[in-house]
Amino acid sequence: MNDKQHQIIKDAIKAIYDRTFFSQYPEHPSSNIYGDTADADGRNWFKEQIGKKFDELYCESAKQWQGYEESPYLQESLDITYPVFTPEQLISNGTEVFESWRKTSIDERAAILINSLESLKDRFFQIAYATMHTTGQGYMMAFQASGPHAADRALEAIAAGYEEVNRFPKKAFWDKPMGKFNLQLNKEWRAVPKGISLVVGCSTFPTWNSIPGLYASLITGNPVIVKPHPGAVLPIAIVVAELQRALSDAGQDPRVVQLAIDSLNAPITVQLAQHTDVKLIDYTGNSEFGDYLEGLKGKTVFTEKTGVNSVILHSTDQADKMISNLAFSICLYSGQMCTAPQNIFISKDGIDTPNGKIGFEEIANKFVQQINGLVDNPKAGPFVLGAIQNKNTCERIERSENLSGKVLLKSRSIENPMFKNARTSTPVLLEVESDQMEVFSKELFGPIALLIKTESVEQSVELARELAEQHGAISCGAYCMDEAMKEFIFDQMSLAATPVSFNLMTGVYVNQHAGFSDFHVTGGNPAGNASFTNPEFVIKRFTWVGKREPAVSGE
Amino acid sequence: MNDKQHQIIKDAIKAIYDRTFFSQYPEHPSSNIYGDTADADGRNWFKEQIGKKFDELYCESAKQWQGYEESPYLQESLDITYPVFTPEQLISNGTEVFESWRKTSIDERAAILINSLESLKDRFFQIAYATMHTTGQGYMMAFQASGPHAADRALEAIAAGYEEVNRFPKKAFWDKPMGKFNLQLNKEWRAVPKGISLVVGCSTFPTWNSIPGLYASLITGNPVIVKPHPGAVLPIAIVVAELQRALSDAGQDPRVVQLAIDSLNAPITVQLAQHTDVKLIDYTGNSEFGDYLEGLKGKTVFTEKTGVNSVILHSTDQADKMISNLAFSICLYSGQMCTAPQNIFISKDGIDTPNGKIGFEEIANKFVQQINGLVDNPKAGPFVLGAIQNKNTCERIERSENLSGKVLLKSRSIENPMFKNARTSTPVLLEVESDQMEVFSKELFGPIALLIKTESVEQSVELARELAEQHGAISCGAYCMDEAMKEFIFDQMSLAATPVSFNLMTGVYVNQHAGFSDFHVTGGNPAGNASFTNPEFVIKRFTWVGKREPAVSGE
Repeated sequence: MNDKQHQIIKDAIKAIYDRTFFSQYPEHPSSNIYGDTADADGRNWFKEQIGKKFDELYCESAKQWQGYEESPYLQESLDITYPVFTPEQLISNGTEVFESWRKTSIDERAAILINSLESLKDRFFQIAYATMHTTGQGYMMAFQASGPHAADRALEAIAAGYEEVNRFPKKAFWDKPMGKFNLQLNKEWRAVPKGISLVVGCSTFPTWNSIPGLYASLITGNPVIVKPHPGAVLPIAIVVAELQRALSDAGQDPRVVQLAIDSLNAPITVQLAQHTDVKLIDYTGNSEFGDYLEGLKGKTVFTEKTGVNSVILHSTDQADKMISNLAFSICLYSGQMCTAPQNIFISKDGIDTPNGKIGFEEIANKFVQQINGLVDNPKAGPFVLGAIQNKNTCERIERSENLSGKVLLKSRSIENPMFKNARTSTPVLLEVESDQMEVFSKELFGPIALLIKTESVEQSVELARELAEQHGAISCGAYCMDEAMKEFIFDQMSLAATPVSFNLMTGVYVNQHAGFSDFHVTGGNPAGNASFTNPEFVIKRFTWVGKREPAVSGE
Repeated sequence: MNDKQHQIIKDAIKAIYDRTFFSQYPEHPSSNIYGDTADADGRNWFKEQIGKKFDELYCESAKQWQGYEESPYLQESLDITYPVFTPEQLISNGTEVFESWRKTSIDERAAILINSLESLKDRFFQIAYATMHTTGQGYMMAFQASGPHAADRALEAIAAGYEEVNRFPKKAFWDKPMGKFNLQLNKEWRAVPKGISLVVGCSTFPTWNSIPGLYASLITGNPVIVKPHPGAVLPIAIVVAELQRALSDAGQDPRVVQLAIDSLNAPITVQLAQHTDVKLIDYTGNSEFGDYLEGLKGKTVFTEKTGVNSVILHSTDQADKMISNLAFSICLYSGQMCTAPQNIFISKDGIDTPNGKIGFEEIANKFVQQINGLVDNPKAGPFVLGAIQNKNTCERIERSENLSGKVLLKSRSIENPMFKNARTSTPVLLEVESDQMEVFSKELFGPIALLIKTESVEQSVELARELAEQHGAISCGAYCMDEAMKEFIFDQMSLAATPVSFNLMTGVYVNQHAGFSDFHVTGGNPAGNASFTNPEFVIKRFTWVGKREPAVSGE
């Protein structure tokens, strides 16, 4: 590890302990470090990929090339293909390279991984366009989430792993006074990697959600098989290509990281996950499959599944800013975020303000206005909403208008000025009574939000806590000006292992979790058993094993 | 927390990071700090307990008193009874006290727990006699393991929990430059305890194995229900009594720790474990029940189950000392230790020494001689062997003589000069071929050891690794003078997550794992999923949950 890399690791570890703002990569596309032509170059590179083989990956002995991606903006196939390996080939490659990778020092592993991020930085715009045209994210989110923010999360995982593997001494002299003599042992400890790691990606955040597990497994010495969602391969394929390049450059076998390609018709995840040699599994996706993976014997499994996120409205001195903030959170990437708010609990008596109560109806009207205002603003709406990744989401949106409850706002399509064929849906807003648990106790993935009329703020909190405990939650927003009530809300939600964002107004949204500071998913409720990046996320990837021997032979 | 307590915590945390020798409590009964009459006082106290109610525990609303302990030395009932609560009462008490205990500061929790250990120190001799007469351990082991060593492990868990809960800042100011302005958030994080903790004890090490989980759960804010084995209650009852006293002295509700009494005929563990409010389970015992507990949904489970421990003989320059060491390890507490060696792998060509090979037969003869020499030594045998805790173990010993293999040494009873009725069994030694996997691939709990004749040392290592991977292992002994072979043995066993002790000769045994230094059980093979005390052992008992809010209202 060179001095610069060493400094990066040191700074990153400090940031983990400080939890103040820290980032290694500018999040704005116009930042100087990316250069004037970076955006155009990235867009052109992406256009040229369409219809071609992605030929940057290790592909010896690959007999087939396949790919099934489709752009939600173009609504046509990208026709990009990738080398295909059988599950047996992937496992046998992984087993082969495990020997050398586990014996590579933590410093060398860290250097290689940091190098891969440095190269990735030059491809953030390629990744941005790849992400837009597989996930439907808007350009800005696609750049930030898949590029700099994902790279920050990768560095966070590298630093956390580096810290944990070096946490205990490699050797110690154990000297125990026994009265007339001392018992003296030389001891050693090793952080022993568990084995092949499988990272299963999702279709909406192909790099941001997969990169932490990928880098956490690698830094702790485990080879990784990345199995992306067949609909969102290119962004993570670029990451895997850069990792393979960094490995090869360092004289390592590139197969330490492999890309596993499958199709919706012939998925291979179960076969890989069940293989005895696969010891670690990272997964982002639906709860049903996540629960199945968590139940597999002999595996260490890290999941982010589905949840039901709540917002609790109690009081505010800036009602319009508050509702504007929530309207943005609901619209952002058309609600296709695990952190998007769904259930907004409002007491039937309305909310307190310094000028008296604002009634439920008035709040509901403001929500309708603010959402319409945003989606109908041609300079904002199409870019904030992005496109709908999966056709099933459109059907869910349609069905949601038939849920029992009062439709306050119907979903419609808006035109994207750059992509005539973009698949778009604006939010549905429903009013629901607090006893209609069957409506609001499941995740309604997509741009679907519910205003739930409760008896009191206490009932709002009780319902939000119960939903998080029973069905999981990844975020919670709350608006409250009373300190005792704030403490009550945070205390109750903390028991349901759900972080709370209070009184967010302009420029910061409940959807966002920052690397090095916010623990993303807590691991403490059904929304997932893992957290980016708490110590558990890295230490469960290796085992501390000791060795000891008398210091003087024969004693 | 006063200065002295603060210093103890500081020293203990340093010891965890150094992993050199550290102990807070003298392990020798004749140490000055215990006083001249301590032993006699402890013995008298124990004698007086027989036939009585153990009246030191919280017992309001207990309607019954029960107890089923029997001394393996006297082979008669102790007739000591304890207050009995229903599972519903235990859970409802736990839920009630959770509110105050989770809100008690980590410093105050640490102070109370350290106080309980200070009081416990004055009762080490009572605990020693209680342990002897429930587990059958010899006096010295009963004193050391249940007293000072268990207290060290408790302090280790307190220190590890203290370190982890304080690892991240309680608050931070997050200040992100956004170009024209800075986005500023005040953030907070809390280590939120998971809920009621159930600690399920075993009959052979009632305090040593239960204390780490008990103290780890308490320091991290979880109330604990201790459910001992009905045959070994008194030692841990004393611990619970001292904890309840320390809690009451600090103005806390004593029910933060409760003792759950049941019987072999009407066990309550399943009912407690399955209760939704029980979030944490610590367990020591057989693999079948351990696997069942590990499979429970919505629980964090820490297990130490059964394993098959191996010894690999390759080469030595002190063959007699080596075999004497192993003979002692086999005899110690009649093999009723989770760390006792069972399978001793020896190449059919024998082992290397500076004076040439020693053949398999000669080694086998030396084993027989050394074991006989130890058990027939009236000043050593009865005290090293102790007594057999469970009659089933005696039957297992008898049956083992009918296993396919050659009986090199039969088990017999020896007389204990102090207890005429002691239930004793000396070791069985069998010779087995390396293809008789069905004989040596299961735990033969008790004084049963197998000499397994292999094709080569490589096969010995392969079998030891495979057994550990498939059936679990907690210890591994190896004798080897060749550095490359030592590395090979440690490397292979480390992949099976099994610590290796090399070339132990006089005064130190593979059975012993020291607090603050040796990780007891690694958590990486089927012998158990937890380790005393790695960071995982404490951090899985709480969840990091964050809160954030704009630093300036309205932004």
